[in-house]
Amino acid sequence: MTGSAIGIIAGGGDLPRAIAESARDAGRPVFVLALRGSSDNWVSNFPHEWISLGETSKAFRALRAGEVGDVLLAGRVERPKFSDIKLDAKSVMLAPRVMAAALRGDDALLRSLVELFEREGFHVIGAAEAAPNLIAQGGALGRLHPTADDQRDIGLAFKVVRALGELDVGQACVVCAGLTLAVEAAEGTDAMIARILALPEHLRGTTTRRRGVLAKAPKPVQDRKTDLPVVGLQTIRNAAAVGLAGIAVEAGGALIVDMRAVAEEADKLGLFVVGVAA
Amino acid sequence: MTGSAIGIIAGGGDLPRAIAESARDAGRPVFVLALRGSSDNWVSNFPHEWISLGETSKAFRALRAGEVGDVLLAGRVERPKFSDIKLDAKSVMLAPRVMAAALRGDDALLRSLVELFEREGFHVIGAAEAAPNLIAQGGALGRLHPTADDQRDIGLAFKVVRALGELDVGQACVVCAGLTLAVEAAEGTDAMIARILALPEHLRGTTTRRRGVLAKAPKPVQDRKTDLPVVGLQTIRNAAAVGLAGIAVEAGGALIVDMRAVAEEADKLGLFVVGVAA
Repeated sequence: MTGSAIGIIAGGGDLPRAIAESARDAGRPVFVLALRGSSDNWVSNFPHEWISLGETSKAFRALRAGEVGDVLLAGRVERPKFSDIKLDAKSVMLAPRVMAAALRGDDALLRSLVELFEREGFHVIGAAEAAPNLIAQGGALGRLHPTADDQRDIGLAFKVVRALGELDVGQACVVCAGLTLAVEAAEGTDAMIARILALPEHLRGTTTRRRGVLAKAPKPVQDRKTDLPVVGLQTIRNAAAVGLAGIAVEAGGALIVDMRAVAEEADKLGLFVVGVAA
Repeated sequence: MTGSAIGIIAGGGDLPRAIAESARDAGRPVFVLALRGSSDNWVSNFPHEWISLGETSKAFRALRAGEVGDVLLAGRVERPKFSDIKLDAKSVMLAPRVMAAALRGDDALLRSLVELFEREGFHVIGAAEAAPNLIAQGGALGRLHPTADDQRDIGLAFKVVRALGELDVGQACVVCAGLTLAVEAAEGTDAMIARILALPEHLRGTTTRRRGVLAKAPKPVQDRKTDLPVVGLQTIRNAAAVGLAGIAVEAGGALIVDMRAVAEEADKLGLFVVGVAA
């Protein structure tokens, strides 16, 4: 019943594009199901179909027409107002289950979507499987390395992120000189980084004297098929703008979009990017 | 060598005043050591002395002249630039220890200050001992009570706060409908509450349809002598402004400044304030 293509259910941001390109470069046929209002024009470089939330039957039909076997969910989707969604008949049947999951948090929502695809005969895979060359490796990505002080901050930051992750709170935090400056919850990583600038200068770094570390690690409870933390060019620029010394991700537990460009930008701005074993 | 008065080392905010008044009302002599740049004019209602950070010898002399036996630290102190502090001879000797502690986090800093006073022969006490009538009790403070949905949010919020507290990150978070909206780190509770408004409206409450809970609980690692979380009139007003349904504190593990006024303001604005057993 299902085919050989990877079906990428694409929300916003650079990640779905990077995965699609990486899978195509590896020789796999790719079909993109682009979420209206979230995804971008890059999808026209691939066989694709646009859908809205609530068009469940159309989505499954399109995936089958695209000869999709493996399915992958990637990219940002703003949680919509449920009242704005037009539900088709299939969606009406599924809505109570998905809404109940959404109220239990991001992880529960993603798990319920994975189940939904699998009951339709698709095989849900993660970015690690579809595009293994996006996965963060151990060690420094660019020329710069963390100092001993940075290493201490990295150690504490991962402890904080993992404690939060166990409660499905967030995937990122910022630590500087042993003090946790900011912790990510519903606002997302970009907003969390931005507020570092509001803290008194002696608690944090500056662009001329970089201090402090952004750490990103997956939630221990999450299904790694669906929601690994992502670092891209914008993450480097945001971290640089608030005076951080660098970024640490869990080796094998984060995706780096445009790895070469990220390394060059980090070198240019004077930040380290390092993968650390879990 | 030491006397019968309570010496209140007073930083900013309403808490030191509330403790001083409460202790005086209970019949104890009170002496206030007011931190220049942090404390306010209310101290002139009590025997007092103004000091700056770094004037350690003067501080101990003033406490002895004020016949102080028990000492209590209360109120906000902005972490200063160390380069702005003029250290007297005694401070120079103590500075390396205190600075090292400060870099290990708030808890370590407070514990090092407690040690410092105790080595001088003072007995450090907590607000619970000096002003037991400020301690949050179990149950609702005003007329409103949490709903079953609020109870669920309170349960998750305390889990999050305690996980954070174990890592000395913060003492507060906001949960709405099972989703952790914000977590306190170095920015403090007021800034954390304020950013709720930046989240999409369907994730949070509004002033016309209140949802979500602010929870405050002490860090499990902290010495309860020094740093219980505080709720006051401003907390109620801030929580009300971002559409929260109410505030939950740990019974016996939080201070409520101006309890009657807080209850009246919460009733007026339509929020519950509840103490929950640990």
